[in-house]
Amino acid sequence: MSDIEIIKKLEKVGLDVLDQFKTEKQPNINIPIRSLSNVYFDAKQGLIKLGDKVQERAYFNIAQTKKFMQTILIAGQIRDLMKQHKPALDTRQLFYILRGTIPGTNEDVFNEQGESDGIIEDVEVSIDALREQLKLVAVPKGIMAGPILIEDTHTGDILDYTKMGTAGGAIPPIVEEDAFKIKSCSAKYILVVEKYAVWNLLNQERYWKKNNCLLITGKGQPARAERRLVSRLAKELKLPVYVFCDMDVYGYYIYSVYKQGSINLAFFSEKAATPSAKYIGFCVDDFKKFDLPKSVLMKMDKGDLKRIEEVKNYDWFKSKEWQGELDKLKNFGHKIESDSLVTKSIEFTANEYLPTKIDNKMFLN
Amino acid sequence: MSDIEIIKKLEKVGLDVLDQFKTEKQPNINIPIRSLSNVYFDAKQGLIKLGDKVQERAYFNIAQTKKFMQTILIAGQIRDLMKQHKPALDTRQLFYILRGTIPGTNEDVFNEQGESDGIIEDVEVSIDALREQLKLVAVPKGIMAGPILIEDTHTGDILDYTKMGTAGGAIPPIVEEDAFKIKSCSAKYILVVEKYAVWNLLNQERYWKKNNCLLITGKGQPARAERRLVSRLAKELKLPVYVFCDMDVYGYYIYSVYKQGSINLAFFSEKAATPSAKYIGFCVDDFKKFDLPKSVLMKMDKGDLKRIEEVKNYDWFKSKEWQGELDKLKNFGHKIESDSLVTKSIEFTANEYLPTKIDNKMFLN
Repeated sequence: MSDIEIIKKLEKVGLDVLDQFKTEKQPNINIPIRSLSNVYFDAKQGLIKLGDKVQERAYFNIAQTKKFMQTILIAGQIRDLMKQHKPALDTRQLFYILRGTIPGTNEDVFNEQGESDGIIEDVEVSIDALREQLKLVAVPKGIMAGPILIEDTHTGDILDYTKMGTAGGAIPPIVEEDAFKIKSCSAKYILVVEKYAVWNLLNQERYWKKNNCLLITGKGQPARAERRLVSRLAKELKLPVYVFCDMDVYGYYIYSVYKQGSINLAFFSEKAATPSAKYIGFCVDDFKKFDLPKSVLMKMDKGDLKRIEEVKNYDWFKSKEWQGELDKLKNFGHKIESDSLVTKSIEFTANEYLPTKIDNKMFLN
Repeated sequence: MSDIEIIKKLEKVGLDVLDQFKTEKQPNINIPIRSLSNVYFDAKQGLIKLGDKVQERAYFNIAQTKKFMQTILIAGQIRDLMKQHKPALDTRQLFYILRGTIPGTNEDVFNEQGESDGIIEDVEVSIDALREQLKLVAVPKGIMAGPILIEDTHTGDILDYTKMGTAGGAIPPIVEEDAFKIKSCSAKYILVVEKYAVWNLLNQERYWKKNNCLLITGKGQPARAERRLVSRLAKELKLPVYVFCDMDVYGYYIYSVYKQGSINLAFFSEKAATPSAKYIGFCVDDFKKFDLPKSVLMKMDKGDLKRIEEVKNYDWFKSKEWQGELDKLKNFGHKIESDSLVTKSIEFTANEYLPTKIDNKMFLN
C-alpha cells in the first residue's frame, strides 16, 4: 500500500461518517475487535491471527461517543501528518499533539497515552495498515550484519551491512518496502540470535562472512522493527530463518514470537511473523550430544517451571516435538543459556554448534 | 594503555602474589574500595570520583581467602583471553567460563554472576583500566549521526555517520581509542538527546546536517558505551556538548550522568563523564519563554517530588542555578517531556527551540 492509498483509506473513515450524517443514518464506525476473544492460532498458516469479529462504535451511544470522536480525531491527525509529509513520530508524540481539552468544555480529548494508543491500533486494524505505514514508530533495538544492500529511501543512503564494523548496522524503526528497499542480498540463510552477547561474539568472529548469512539480534524480546524485518526478508528473499535462543522457556517463547507472533499484537503478528522459522536450539538433547561441561547448567526456579506449563498450553506449542521438548526441559530441571556455550570454547558456537545443527538440519519446528 | 601494557599489569597482580609467597610474606592484594564511603564529588574537576581508600584482600584471612582466589582467577582468565586475542565477551560469558567447582571439593568457584561482576570491577580499578580495555563489554544502546568518520580497527571498516540512513549508526560496545579511531570530524558541537523519539525526529529533519553537529542518543538512561563515547569526543575533539532532556527530575539526572557520572560506577565515571557538558533544557522558564500550549504539561506525582528533594541533595546539583531550577520545578508542579514539544509544531524543536537556546547560550551548568 502506498502512502496515497493509506491517506485515501484514512479519509474514507471520515467520509463514511459524513455520509451517515447526511443520510441521517446513525453514525458509526466498524472496528475489528482486538481482544483475546477474537485472537486465534491459525495452525494451517502457522500464525497468530485476529478473527473477524467487529464492534460498532456508535456516535449516538453515550458509552461510545468519546471513543467515536477520538477515532475520527486520530485518523484525521495521522492523515494530516502524512499529507504534509511530516517526519515519522512515535505514539507518545501523537498523543501530545492530540491532547488538550475539547473547545468549550473542561473535558480532555485524551486523558492518557493508553487511550490514544488503543485507538491508534483500532485505526491500524480498520484500514489494514501497520502503524509503521501510518508513520508511527516504536523504538527499535535490533542490529544486523551480513551480505545485504539496502536503500534507505528517506535519506538516499545505500546501507552495506558488510561494512558496519563491530557495532553492526542498526535496524531503523520503519522497515517497510518503500522505506527500506532491498537492493541485493547474497545470504543463504538468516540467523536470528536472541542475545546481544552471542550476536556480538559471532559478529566479531565474522560468522556471517564465513557462513554467508545475515546475522540479526533483537536483544532479547524483539521490538516491532526486528520482527517485521525478519518476516520481510524471509518472504521476499525466500531465505530459511534459524532462531538461536537460550534453552529456557523464555528463549523458546522468543522464538515463537518471531515465528508465530504474539497474542497481544495479533494484528501485527499476521504481518510480522515468520511461520517458516526454525528453532536451532539450544535444546535439552544438545547437552549430551555436544558433550558440554556441567558448568553451563543453571537450576530452574518455580517461576520457570510454572511458565513451562503455560507455554505448553499455547496452541502454537502443541506439536509433538515441542510438547516433548518442554517435557524434557521440565525433567532436566536446568536451563542452558546460549552465552554459556563459551565454557566449551570461545569458538564452539560458531565453529561447531551452529554448523553441526544447520548441516544436519537439527531443527525443532 | 595498549593491550600489551594491560596484560603486563594483569600479570603483575599474579607475580606480586607469587613474590609474597616466595619471600614468605602474607600474600595479599590491595583493592581500591568502591563502596559509597570512598566515593566523592570533586567540585573542581566536576567529576564523581573514587577516593584513595584501599582494602587488603589477604590469602590467610579466612573471610577473604575465597575472594582472593577469585581475584587471581579473574585477572588470570582475562589475561589469557587477551593474550590469545579472543573476541570481547560480556561479563556473563566470563562468569560461565570461570564457573564450576574447585577441583577436589564441592565448593563452587563462583556462586552467581554478582560475585564475578564485583571482582571484575575490583580488577578494573586495581590496574586502572576500564572493563572495555579488558575486552569485556556491556550491551550498548546508542545511536549517532553526523559529520564524523571512524575507523573500526577490528573489522577495518570506515564508518561514515552521515550515511547511516534513518537508523543512524549504532554505537559499538567498545569505543576505546585503539578500537574506534576518529579519522575526521567537522562537527561544531555534540547534541546529546535523552529520548529516541526526539533523536529520530531530529535525524529525519537532518538536524545534524543543517547545524553541523553530532546527534547522539543513549535511549534514556545511557549505557556505558554512549557515556564513554561522548566523553572521548568532547575531550579529543574539544567540542561543546549540549544535553537535551525531559523537563523532569529524571531528565535532569540523566544529564548529570553524562556530565559528572554516577555514584555506583564512580571509577567508570572518572573516565566516561563530560564535565564540560551543558544542559540545554527543557527548563521551567522555557514554558513561558517559548509560549507553549498547556497540553505539554504533565502533572508530577509524589514520587517525582520526592526525587527532586533527593537530587537537590546531591553535591553535583549544589550550584545556585540548579538549586533554583529544582525549586522552580517543584513549584511548577508539572513536567514537560521533550517529545511533547511537537504540540507547538513538528519543526519547533529543530528550527526554533534548539537554535534559540544554542545561539543565545541559554544553558544551565
